[in-house]
Amino acid sequence: MQVLILGAAGMVGRRLAQHLLASGRLGDQPVSRITAFDMVPADLEAGASGIDLKIVTGDISDAATIRALVADRPDVIFHLAAVVSGEAEADFDKGYRINLDGTRHLFEAIRAEADYRPRVVYTSSIAVFGAPFGDKIGDEFLTAPLTSYGTQKMIGELLLNDYSRRGIFDGIGIRLPTIVVRPGKPNKAASSFFSGIIREPLAGIEADLPVDDDVRHWVASPDSAVGYLVHGATMDLEPVGPRRCLTMPGLSVTVAEMLAALRDVTGEDVVARVRRKPDETIRRIVAGWPRDFDATRAAELGFVTDASFHEIIRAHQRETGHGLA
Amino acid sequence: MQVLILGAAGMVGRRLAQHLLASGRLGDQPVSRITAFDMVPADLEAGASGIDLKIVTGDISDAATIRALVADRPDVIFHLAAVVSGEAEADFDKGYRINLDGTRHLFEAIRAEADYRPRVVYTSSIAVFGAPFGDKIGDEFLTAPLTSYGTQKMIGELLLNDYSRRGIFDGIGIRLPTIVVRPGKPNKAASSFFSGIIREPLAGIEADLPVDDDVRHWVASPDSAVGYLVHGATMDLEPVGPRRCLTMPGLSVTVAEMLAALRDVTGEDVVARVRRKPDETIRRIVAGWPRDFDATRAAELGFVTDASFHEIIRAHQRETGHGLA
Repeated sequence: MQVLILGAAGMVGRRLAQHLLASGRLGDQPVSRITAFDMVPADLEAGASGIDLKIVTGDISDAATIRALVADRPDVIFHLAAVVSGEAEADFDKGYRINLDGTRHLFEAIRAEADYRPRVVYTSSIAVFGAPFGDKIGDEFLTAPLTSYGTQKMIGELLLNDYSRRGIFDGIGIRLPTIVVRPGKPNKAASSFFSGIIREPLAGIEADLPVDDDVRHWVASPDSAVGYLVHGATMDLEPVGPRRCLTMPGLSVTVAEMLAALRDVTGEDVVARVRRKPDETIRRIVAGWPRDFDATRAAELGFVTDASFHEIIRAHQRETGHGLA
Repeated sequence: MQVLILGAAGMVGRRLAQHLLASGRLGDQPVSRITAFDMVPADLEAGASGIDLKIVTGDISDAATIRALVADRPDVIFHLAAVVSGEAEADFDKGYRINLDGTRHLFEAIRAEADYRPRVVYTSSIAVFGAPFGDKIGDEFLTAPLTSYGTQKMIGELLLNDYSRRGIFDGIGIRLPTIVVRPGKPNKAASSFFSGIIREPLAGIEADLPVDDDVRHWVASPDSAVGYLVHGATMDLEPVGPRRCLTMPGLSVTVAEMLAALRDVTGEDVVARVRRKPDETIRRIVAGWPRDFDATRAAELGFVTDASFHEIIRAHQRETGHGLA
C-alpha cells in the first residue's frame, strides 16, 4: 500500500508518518511507500521499517506539483496541508490559494487519473461552525463559518462530499478538536495556552493563563488525532452515506478541570507554575469558539478519543519524560 | 445608479431588467445605466426609459471578461448567471467552471477594484439543502447539498458571506423557490411540469402530470422573484448579520391544491386538459426535493411573496391573456 501525506511536516502529519513508519502497516495492510510532502522537508526517517520513504517539498497551490504526486497513484491520501486560522485571516490571498485552490488541485488531479479511486482523508476543523451556537453542537448543526479559514475548510468539505458522491474518490472528512498537549514551544495561535498550561508546568516552566478558569473547550490528544486519521483511512465508508465530514469525538473540559487533572497527576507545585494573566484579546477570541459537541455519528462509526484529560496528561508525560515523579 | 445583471437573458434576469427599464428606478434611486450580460444577447429594449442599456455577451468563466464588466464600477450587481441543476450534474467541468469559477471571478474582480464596495445580489437555490429533511426546513437547517449544482451554489454562499464579512462588498444571497408559472415552453427540467400543468391548460393545450396529486412543492411567481431581487438590492443589510443567504418566502402547495386553484380561477374544462401520466424517473427526483420551508428570517427582513396560488394563476393570465373568460 502506498500512502501520500500532504502536510507531513506539521505536528499531526509528521506524527501520522512516524506511526506508519513504526508499525509498517495501515490497518491490516503493509505500507510499502510513504510520500511525505510539505513546504519544508518533513523531519522523518525510514529507520528499520523497510518502507520506501520519499520526502518531497513543494507548493500545494501549484497544480502541476500536485498532479505529479498523484501520478504515483497512492492508495491513501492524507490531506493535512493548510494555512492555519490566524494566517488565513491575515493573508486573504494565501488562505484561499493554499486552503481552497490547493484542495481543489488535489481533487482535480485525482479526477484526471483514469481508473483510479483512492481513499482521501481530509482534515477539516470545528471552525466550520460559527456562533451563535448552543451548549452542544450536534451532527446536524448548521455549518456557518465566521472566518476565512472556516469558510475554506467548509468549501473543502462540500467538494469532498460531491467528488465522493460522484465516485471520483472515496473521501472522509475529519473535523479535529483542538490538539492538547501539543509538543514543542508555545506559538502565536490564540489556542496555544491550552497546551501551554500543561506542557510548560510539566517541564518546570511558568505558563500564562489568559482566560478565566470556567472557560470550556473541545480537545483531543495528538495520539487521538493520529487514531482518527488511521481509522478514516481504513474504515468501511458504506455506512457513512453522502455526508462525509464528521466532527470527531473529543473531551469537553474547562480550564479548571484541566488544572485539577494536572494537580491529580502531578501535584500542587506543578500547577502553581500557571500564572493568571488575563488577556482581553484572547478572552474575546476564545469566547467565540464552540465549547462542546455531540459527536454521535463519529462515535457510532468507530472513532474513539481519549479516556480522560488525566490520560492526555499522562501520555504527554510518557512521551517527554516531563513531570514524572 | 448603475446596475450590472449577470444572466440577463434568463427568465428571471430578463424580467428584472424589464422591471428596471419600465420603472426607471431601483428602490428610490434613478437608474442611469443597465449592463445586461449573458452568453447570448438579452432580448431587451431601452424604449422610452432614458436608461443607457448595454447588452453584452461573454463567458462568465473568463476572468478578464468579468473584470472588464466590474471595471465600470456598477453600484449594484445582480448575479443570476448559472448552469442549471441538470446540466451541472451532466457536465461536471461546465458546472464548476460557470457556477464556481464564474462566481469567484466576479468576487475577485470586485476585490481588485480600489475603494469600491458594491451591493451584490446573488441568486442561490433551495438545492443547498439535501435529504433527509423534515416537513419544514427552517433558517437554521443544515445545508448539505446532494447535487453538484447545490454544492456549487453553497460554495458561492460561503464565499459571499466571507467576502461580505471582510467588507469587500455588501452581499445578499437569495434562495429562490421553484418559479411558477414560468412563461414560454416546457423545458427538460424535472420541475418543468409544475408550470406546465397551469400554463398549457390556460393556453388550451394538454399537459402531462408525471407525479401524484399529493406531491407538495415550494413555489413563487416570476414577479415575486423580481421582488426578492429588488428588495435584496435596496434593503438595509445591517440587521442581516453574517449569515447573508436567505431562504425566500414562498408557497408550499400540493399538486391537488394547484389544480383546485386552477379550477376555481377558470373551470373544470381547463383542468381537464391535465393528463395523469406517471413518470417513475420524475417521481423519484421530485421525491428527493424539499417540500416546505419556514422562511421566518427573510419575512422579518421584509421579503414578501405571493398571496395565494390563485393570485399566481391570475397574474399569469393578466400577462398572457390566456384562459380569461
